[in-house]
Amino acid sequence: MAEGSPASELEFLELIDRHFSGSGPGLSLGRGDDCAVLECPSVLALSTDLFLEDVHFRRSYFGPGDIGHKALAVNVSDVAGMGCCPLGFSLGLMVPGGAGLPGGFWDGLFTGMAALAGEHGLVLTGGDLSRAPLLGMCVTIWGEPGPGGRVLRREARAGDVLVGCGELGLVRVGLAALERGGAAAAGDFPQAVAAHLRPVPQVAAGLALAAQPAVRGAMDVSDGLAMDLARLLGADRGAELGADLELPPQALHPEVSAWCAATGEDPGLFAYRGGEDYALLAACEPAGLEEILRAVPGSRAIGRVRAGRGVTVNGLPAPGAGFDHFAG
Amino acid sequence: MAEGSPASELEFLELIDRHFSGSGPGLSLGRGDDCAVLECPSVLALSTDLFLEDVHFRRSYFGPGDIGHKALAVNVSDVAGMGCCPLGFSLGLMVPGGAGLPGGFWDGLFTGMAALAGEHGLVLTGGDLSRAPLLGMCVTIWGEPGPGGRVLRREARAGDVLVGCGELGLVRVGLAALERGGAAAAGDFPQAVAAHLRPVPQVAAGLALAAQPAVRGAMDVSDGLAMDLARLLGADRGAELGADLELPPQALHPEVSAWCAATGEDPGLFAYRGGEDYALLAACEPAGLEEILRAVPGSRAIGRVRAGRGVTVNGLPAPGAGFDHFAG
Repeated sequence: MAEGSPASELEFLELIDRHFSGSGPGLSLGRGDDCAVLECPSVLALSTDLFLEDVHFRRSYFGPGDIGHKALAVNVSDVAGMGCCPLGFSLGLMVPGGAGLPGGFWDGLFTGMAALAGEHGLVLTGGDLSRAPLLGMCVTIWGEPGPGGRVLRREARAGDVLVGCGELGLVRVGLAALERGGAAAAGDFPQAVAAHLRPVPQVAAGLALAAQPAVRGAMDVSDGLAMDLARLLGADRGAELGADLELPPQALHPEVSAWCAATGEDPGLFAYRGGEDYALLAACEPAGLEEILRAVPGSRAIGRVRAGRGVTVNGLPAPGAGFDHFAG
Repeated sequence: MAEGSPASELEFLELIDRHFSGSGPGLSLGRGDDCAVLECPSVLALSTDLFLEDVHFRRSYFGPGDIGHKALAVNVSDVAGMGCCPLGFSLGLMVPGGAGLPGGFWDGLFTGMAALAGEHGLVLTGGDLSRAPLLGMCVTIWGEPGPGGRVLRREARAGDVLVGCGELGLVRVGLAALERGGAAAAGDFPQAVAAHLRPVPQVAAGLALAAQPAVRGAMDVSDGLAMDLARLLGADRGAELGADLELPPQALHPEVSAWCAATGEDPGLFAYRGGEDYALLAACEPAGLEEILRAVPGSRAIGRVRAGRGVTVNGLPAPGAGFDHFAG
């Protein structure tokens, strides 16, 4: 058994009980039976994401709390991308045997996860715990629509304005800096590193987008704008739409500009490719834009949808590429 | 990329689409967005289980279809254990890189999984797909109570009759025979091997139990009767209950008797320890027993709950032990 791990399943469950309440709104029966029992709203948005060591994170620069935070945050972001409010989650936890995890590792991981869960009022309803050849988590999360009852899907039409909420390209700087310099990268790129280790899901922005009738569709940008914009435009559904993006230096985080200045990359194209941004991207009717920018925290116009495939960034054709955990 | 695996995420998703319908009852929005959107009953029973190579199954004797079937079946069994009817599931799929999976592997896996899903009318709402250092699945499943609206929890009182639905100990024979003889074990122990590779979740029995007012509590026996009976009796909740079990040879599957005759083990204790039975265990008021045995398919009385901890099997004190994937 690893030094940092509880010695038995029972001790593990006790540790989880110390970090996560066994009851909460909408939970008739919590952990400890075959199933949790939920009192449900009539509509639920539900998503599942894996978070695996050396695929989605590295322990060389992710602290235990970062791992716990991010495993949940990437799921919360999926609910935010639908304009919904997260309610609860279940957890499949893969616990590696042998040595390797430092003392207090699991306490730290659950502290990070529970802090984010507490921020959003999420209950951990249960899950599964297994010895495994790797450290990993599989989170299933669910949420409900906001007061207006609207769920945002991936939709766009020619003429729509594209609105972004959250930084584009910043996490990519953090990942590149960490891969190059390890944890010390936080010295030069503190916010980029923080954005990679502890992404902040845009729940308030998602709910605010869903409350705006001029918002036609939205999604979370988890694989980078290059890949996810194509999905919003419906490339996978055969739609013949493209977009002209404006990502000038003043629209990007200073650390993105600094990174690109140091590496000689084009900041607009760098931000477009991105990856793991956990920003939101929405397509909006132009008439409602002013109201959207006023009502949705952190929102800004970043381009326009047009007929015909292809994307330009700051007037130049952009290659279609993104971040793919599967191919990567 | 493994020989048997699709070359890209897109090809993988296309393969999944060929096996699983993208729409179904209660599903407003299926796979392909940030979240699936479900139209929910007011109460949901929800469970998550991991199914990992060399922890929960071995490819040396599990065919691809067996793996797909069992990954889902163990989850269906959790819903059955609550007396509920399964509705849908999401899937976190871990795809090993490198060589090792034979041609057609994934097609076979999804065929087995889709056949069981079809039997129970389950929709696959979405999930996640990731390259991983192991072959594994994390399934989250949900279901709704039957027409009576009742959800069965783990409850028992002194004087209750214990009722079992499904074979006890048979899967343990299958596992032991397969570990000893590999796939050839199916020659001597065909039904035990089948029960291990393709367990049949007791959904109809669970729903029938929930419809009986004399059933006080129930659960699925996934870790063996020794471990799960203690849970039904509330040992983990501080209850001071025990049980006297009657598991005579005629109540056990002939392959359990044959295995124990060959190995010199006591059949009753062997069945009591069990493991991965995916049978159901219920505690029932004695007055309703006759009606329960009549109404619940495959049910039989296997013992009685009494005050004071400790379990006897066929009159002899039984050691408290079971099957623990975590410690194992």
